[in-house]
Amino acid sequence: MRIDLNSDLGEAFGAWPMGQDGLLMPVISSANVACGFHAGDPCTIRQTIRLARKHGVAVGAHPGLPDLVGFGRREMQVAPAEVEDMVLYQVGALAAIARHEGVRLQHVKAHGALYNMACRDEALAEAVARAVVAFDPTLVLFGLPGSALLQAGLDAGLPVAAEAFADRAYQPDGSLAPRSQPGAVIHDVDAVVSRAVAMVTEQTVVATDGSTIEFEADTLCLHGDTPGAAALAVAIRRGLEDAGVTIAALVRR
Amino acid sequence: MRIDLNSDLGEAFGAWPMGQDGLLMPVISSANVACGFHAGDPCTIRQTIRLARKHGVAVGAHPGLPDLVGFGRREMQVAPAEVEDMVLYQVGALAAIARHEGVRLQHVKAHGALYNMACRDEALAEAVARAVVAFDPTLVLFGLPGSALLQAGLDAGLPVAAEAFADRAYQPDGSLAPRSQPGAVIHDVDAVVSRAVAMVTEQTVVATDGSTIEFEADTLCLHGDTPGAAALAVAIRRGLEDAGVTIAALVRR
Amino acid sequence: MRIDLNSDLGEAFGAWPMGQDGLLMPVISSANVACGFHAGDPCTIRQTIRLARKHGVAVGAHPGLPDLVGFGRREMQVAPAEVEDMVLYQVGALAAIARHEGVRLQHVKAHGALYNMACRDEALAEAVARAVVAFDPTLVLFGLPGSALLQAGLDAGLPVAAEAFADRAYQPDGSLAPRSQPGAVIHDVDAVVSRAVAMVTEQTVVATDGSTIEFEADTLCLHGDTPGAAALAVAIRRGLEDAGVTIAALVRR
Amino acid sequence: MRIDLNSDLGEAFGAWPMGQDGLLMPVISSANVACGFHAGDPCTIRQTIRLARKHGVAVGAHPGLPDLVGFGRREMQVAPAEVEDMVLYQVGALAAIARHEGVRLQHVKAHGALYNMACRDEALAEAVARAVVAFDPTLVLFGLPGSALLQAGLDAGLPVAAEAFADRAYQPDGSLAPRSQPGAVIHDVDAVVSRAVAMVTEQTVVATDGSTIEFEADTLCLHGDTPGAAALAVAIRRGLEDAGVTIAALVRR
Repeated sequence: MRIDLNSDLGEAFGAWPMGQDGLLMPVISSANVACGFHAGDPCTIRQTIRLARKHGVAVGAHPGLPDLVGFGRREMQVAPAEVEDMVLYQVGALAAIARHEGVRLQHVKAHGALYNMACRDEALAEAVARAVVAFDPTLVLFGLPGSALLQAGLDAGLPVAAEAFADRAYQPDGSLAPRSQPGAVIHDVDAVVSRAVAMVTEQTVVATDGSTIEFEADTLCLHGDTPGAAALAVAIRRGLEDAGVTIAALVRR
Repeated sequence: MRIDLNSDLGEAFGAWPMGQDGLLMPVISSANVACGFHAGDPCTIRQTIRLARKHGVAVGAHPGLPDLVGFGRREMQVAPAEVEDMVLYQVGALAAIARHEGVRLQHVKAHGALYNMACRDEALAEAVARAVVAFDPTLVLFGLPGSALLQAGLDAGLPVAAEAFADRAYQPDGSLAPRSQPGAVIHDVDAVVSRAVAMVTEQTVVATDGSTIEFEADTLCLHGDTPGAAALAVAIRRGLEDAGVTIAALVRR
Repeated sequence: MRIDLNSDLGEAFGAWPMGQDGLLMPVISSANVACGFHAGDPCTIRQTIRLARKHGVAVGAHPGLPDLVGFGRREMQVAPAEVEDMVLYQVGALAAIARHEGVRLQHVKAHGALYNMACRDEALAEAVARAVVAFDPTLVLFGLPGSALLQAGLDAGLPVAAEAFADRAYQPDGSLAPRSQPGAVIHDVDAVVSRAVAMVTEQTVVATDGSTIEFEADTLCLHGDTPGAAALAVAIRRGLEDAGVTIAALVRR
Repeated sequence: MRIDLNSDLGEAFGAWPMGQDGLLMPVISSANVACGFHAGDPCTIRQTIRLARKHGVAVGAHPGLPDLVGFGRREMQVAPAEVEDMVLYQVGALAAIARHEGVRLQHVKAHGALYNMACRDEALAEAVARAVVAFDPTLVLFGLPGSALLQAGLDAGLPVAAEAFADRAYQPDGSLAPRSQPGAVIHDVDAVVSRAVAMVTEQTVVATDGSTIEFEADTLCLHGDTPGAAALAVAIRRGLEDAGVTIAALVRR
């Protein structure tokens, strides 16, 4: 049994720090590094990739919408062609700096609103997949299980990774409970840890209606920008290791 | 006898057009494509590269300072490490889109204030050269003859191209007359054409004091953003061809 | 009979020109000046206001979404509180420069996607109205007739101006035909002029189903960013004047 | 004996927090609020002004260069006309939001590189002063004692405030020791406090050569963005109060 643990890192911008990269990097196996559109800047990218390399963490691009002040979390009416080009631009920029640091990219995970939009909109999902295939068809594309994004990756011949969230509630159909719904985010550390273990060792999760549903996950997302995030990440990793799970980056084809 | 003719293109931004790319592309052999920091955006980059490919024009990256409203023309107090990372970021972004269009980059020409600063400041010149070498050591680095930038390229083992301006006055030491000086920009088309021909066929130029100085040029820069720019570019190309000069992109090692 | 003719101006950005401000300013009575979020910058704002003052044209703020590369035309998921603050910020910035030029603002017209969103979303409409009332309750708020935006202005006690488009098709319910619909934009100059005259002198327009509908308009929008825009604007103004209509800015309370 | 204590606040940007506004606001008498060019955004501005009002702290505009990623700390080649317009834009934007919160601006303090440039360059200093006078001639202009900026304010008829730094070393001529010089920043809390007290109660400071120089200060700047900044600010305030000094905002004419 093995699982990848990913987290969004390198989300500082200029003089503004963000998150707890130094605490999370030793815990995770894959870092999604912001590419300058929703967060990150060339120097931050470099430092983040160095930190990942030092900890043996695989590096992925984390492209977002061009919305710094909104941190890429506000959905925007972007055309597929715009998305294709902005993803390619960001992945290319990040990969250039990574290569200078001797690091080859492992994956691409869209950020925030772009991720959400591409998970449900086929045209945008295909645009993301086209950009990734064009850049490097061995890159692993992250997406929600059952999403348009993951399907577009498969259709494009990309390796894909189904992403799960141990601290988020799932509906009986396997989709995430919307954040507006009470209980959508699970704050109890023990509950989150045991959900993570069940996700990986049994491929199941208890849904919002109490039923246990089948569940596929190649990578678990650990949040880095909330208080207690690092402690929760450590607890999840320990819980998984205690259950005999190996934490390891994804295997590129 | 051969010479490269380069021009800054792809300097539109979003809804704002700029320059006369459609008129200049048939005239030049190398296009310096803006990378999104001083001008350009992912979609504009894509369209510009397509246009260059259609015309058989070699494509180079044209990275600039992060100053959209100032069009990268205002000098900024940037550290060498910032310059290295911002050049790498921009070149990587552009190269990714170019590759998607089946185009491999030929060269890198810094834009505006970044070019000027790197031509006279060794530390910044070395930072630009480090970024280019790191990305692709076969890329040709553009710079003024005798500049710190060209020297840094040579020291880094890069192929370099000495750039000249047929419509700019030169001082007896071979440096450009500052724009603040009367006569710094030559507006007479015939004068510009005959200077271009002398630059290429005789490797000389008449300096501001009337003396004829030796002069090395691998590429001539044709401006694209002034009224009459396209007509001047056509006149220069014809003048060169009439003098038996072949217009051709640079040769990568 | 009188009507205000408005146009979006000052939409240059840094080195990038936009539109035909010099040609339109003599034709219109109210200028909507971009405020720096979707277009415009402090120096462009100043020059545009000077030009308006020279031509005796009333000046209004034209605040937009923070999306330069998209020219404020892409809808974004913005919260009402964000809209209130971004409108206030932009109106305040523009008014400060206007006052330095001896000009007092007449009106506020939201731009592009912000206008469209505020015309149909009550919460966003109220946010815009709150910002305008807070800044200066005598400013005229522009909006589509029957829109949430115009209603929010009325509810807030603002003077409002119903805006019509002589070159756009209207549906029988008085709403604009969507641009995706064939014939949504009318290109025939004579047709546009006669529609403008009917709008002002008879308060009617022929709808897409051929019926003639009642129609209220305090201001007609003249586009400035299309080829032939200035010529069309001149034709509309002449047609109106020939029909005995006075072109004049709105009257502030 | 009285003194104003000022600090740069509201320097968050979107999702990125900055500084310790909540800890500093109770300690200071004047807040310099970032205006969106080097830091700050409309919503952050609003929240910062609310916090200042709650603590009875006077509010000033803190305009900077258009350089988010460099936090306005990198000098840029800006023309006086650009500076005049960018200061006016920022002050107007901030004042509009302040007025919505029932707050009238007290002062203007340029930020970072803009402050440094305007302190030594007469043309830029005059541009800043022109913008402030145009907006509101009762605003207090902050500047270093003896600087071109303060002089430009006086020449323009503005009330001015000479600003001192208790934790910075001064040269015998009264100028700040450059940060590159060892000992330029004083880290010992007791030393900083006793310097602050001497500055206010005796109008003197011990210079880098050991001599005691005369020194005029209307306001002391308390830094907010370093570890221990809030504790140092509290210590300075207590030291001053123990020495019988009243901490109070400046008096507008």
